Amino acid sequence: MKLSEVAEVIPVTVASRSEFIDKLHGEFSDIVGIGRGYLTVKQVGLFDKELISHFPSTLKYIAHQGAGYDQIDAKALAERGIQLANAPGIVDAATADTALFLILGAMRNFDYGRKNLKEGKWPAGGFAAGAPLGITPRNKILGIIGMGGIGRAVCERVRPLGFEKFVYYNRSRLNEELEQGAIYVSLERLLEVADVISLHCPLNETTWHLLNDERIQHMKYGAIIVNTARGAVIDEHALVKHLKSGRIAGAGLDVFEYEPSVSRELLDLPNVLALPHMGTQAVQTVKEMEECVVKNIYSGITKGRVETLVPEQKSFFTEAYEI
Amino acid sequence: MKLSEVAEVIPVTVASRSEFIDKLHGEFSDIVGIGRGYLTVKQVGLFDKELISHFPSTLKYIAHQGAGYDQIDAKALAERGIQLANAPGIVDAATADTALFLILGAMRNFDYGRKNLKEGKWPAGGFAAGAPLGITPRNKILGIIGMGGIGRAVCERVRPLGFEKFVYYNRSRLNEELEQGAIYVSLERLLEVADVISLHCPLNETTWHLLNDERIQHMKYGAIIVNTARGAVIDEHALVKHLKSGRIAGAGLDVFEYEPSVSRELLDLPNVLALPHMGTQAVQTVKEMEECVVKNIYSGITKGRVETLVPEQKSFFTEAYEI
Repeated sequence: MKLSEVAEVIPVTVASRSEFIDKLHGEFSDIVGIGRGYLTVKQVGLFDKELISHFPSTLKYIAHQGAGYDQIDAKALAERGIQLANAPGIVDAATADTALFLILGAMRNFDYGRKNLKEGKWPAGGFAAGAPLGITPRNKILGIIGMGGIGRAVCERVRPLGFEKFVYYNRSRLNEELEQGAIYVSLERLLEVADVISLHCPLNETTWHLLNDERIQHMKYGAIIVNTARGAVIDEHALVKHLKSGRIAGAGLDVFEYEPSVSRELLDLPNVLALPHMGTQAVQTVKEMEECVVKNIYSGITKGRVETLVPEQKSFFTEAYEI
Repeated sequence: MKLSEVAEVIPVTVASRSEFIDKLHGEFSDIVGIGRGYLTVKQVGLFDKELISHFPSTLKYIAHQGAGYDQIDAKALAERGIQLANAPGIVDAATADTALFLILGAMRNFDYGRKNLKEGKWPAGGFAAGAPLGITPRNKILGIIGMGGIGRAVCERVRPLGFEKFVYYNRSRLNEELEQGAIYVSLERLLEVADVISLHCPLNETTWHLLNDERIQHMKYGAIIVNTARGAVIDEHALVKHLKSGRIAGAGLDVFEYEPSVSRELLDLPNVLALPHMGTQAVQTVKEMEECVVKNIYSGITKGRVETLVPEQKSFFTEAYEI
């Protein structure tokens, strides 16, 4: 399989949305497919109704290099007859590893100690350079919000750590095999009982600010939040408030509501371990995602259908997916 | 069980070794047991032959709050008829969790990204704030040096991550059940094949500078080292040299050869994720270790034998351990 054998491959190097739109009516006016990464939002912005209205009628396939495609209006694309593929599954392991790192780091105050060590507060600061004692998973309950591929991969990874229990909230209950012993509960119940909450749901209208001020106040006092999903699943303003008061004991964050811009106030909190969206940043994962983009466009061109159509579009393209 | 019912409990608050020695000939001249933490080395120094020569003849039991007791001359104590207990097992989970955090962090360059984020290099630094792409466990081999309780707990924890293989080096081969599928190899072979090496051996004459300049040069180019055992198991000078050259791609370190003093040069390397000896720093773990110290002294006083005698002393106290 070689994409260049079935299509002309043009690298897109545009500096702005208006330049991209201009080219959609010029150089790109007969394109069949687009492969995109999520960081292109910096140059061309969201793939929203407005941008989609400029797409040429020749365009049939868009392959997104990532699992989450909240930057793209999948329904508006479908209405134009454009299939959207994401890269599901591939990112599960690397993202779950990132969540595991953040869960351990936030529970044990590792970043607090690391920082004090770096600032020369050892031995002066005392034991562990003055970092407060953390907690281990023993007798603690982990709550997973979103039990898709990534949530389940997290579940597998935290199993040997010795948590007392796992609870999860999901749009619908999984079958027993996929549950792996985790207990299906309502969101309200999860907030009430979990000592550590890890987020693994997509960002959409339903999950925007899922953890808002009110819901955070229903969490256990001193609970920990880990987010490797999307920043806007949490109301960041409320998060900062409760991290400052200590109601939330700590947070491990790979994503931010307004990333790549992140508030200095949030970053400077001693109980926050923050990464710049590194969930899928690994050689093997990036390579597989790139391959997935190429395969989807190739499949679109040669078979009339992408390989990993996003769920929201399934009802629009039933014909293309009949064997 | 209440220690104060069978003994007078005196908190030791001495500022220096000489003050401690003075009291051993005064206020402490009739003590029966000592409970000690590893950080007391800052005030009173090592429990070496010199200090032991000042111990009163009434002293029979020393309980150390920790798994590693390299600060204590167990043999010299045994020759004086003093039993030494450590706190094995208790620390396994918390230490293995720390190793897991460092393995993930070092493989994925998480600390590099965290640092760049903190320094405001996002979005200016690009993707992941400019942190280099890390690696995932896929197709990689993890080598564990020392397969005691902690090494085996690490093995359990890394199993779901998807490493291709686990190899281990240990004084002797474990039985199949304890091996959990890990492959027993020589130290030389382990250095040759492992992409990530995690250290879990005690520090003693045999393991001092186990990873020295020569052995590091036998490691895979670009391998990663994680140390939650003892700093001096690695020749730190050689480690810095090879981290700078890139022969060692990264290190996750909870312990240091001269801790609590740590070289600024080591700390400032971008490929080092460093913690100030936090392996057992967790509420539940510290509580259990403290209980273990109390139980050991209590058992010594009431039964003539501590509960968790260190292995080196077993041949000295056979009589006390006959049922």
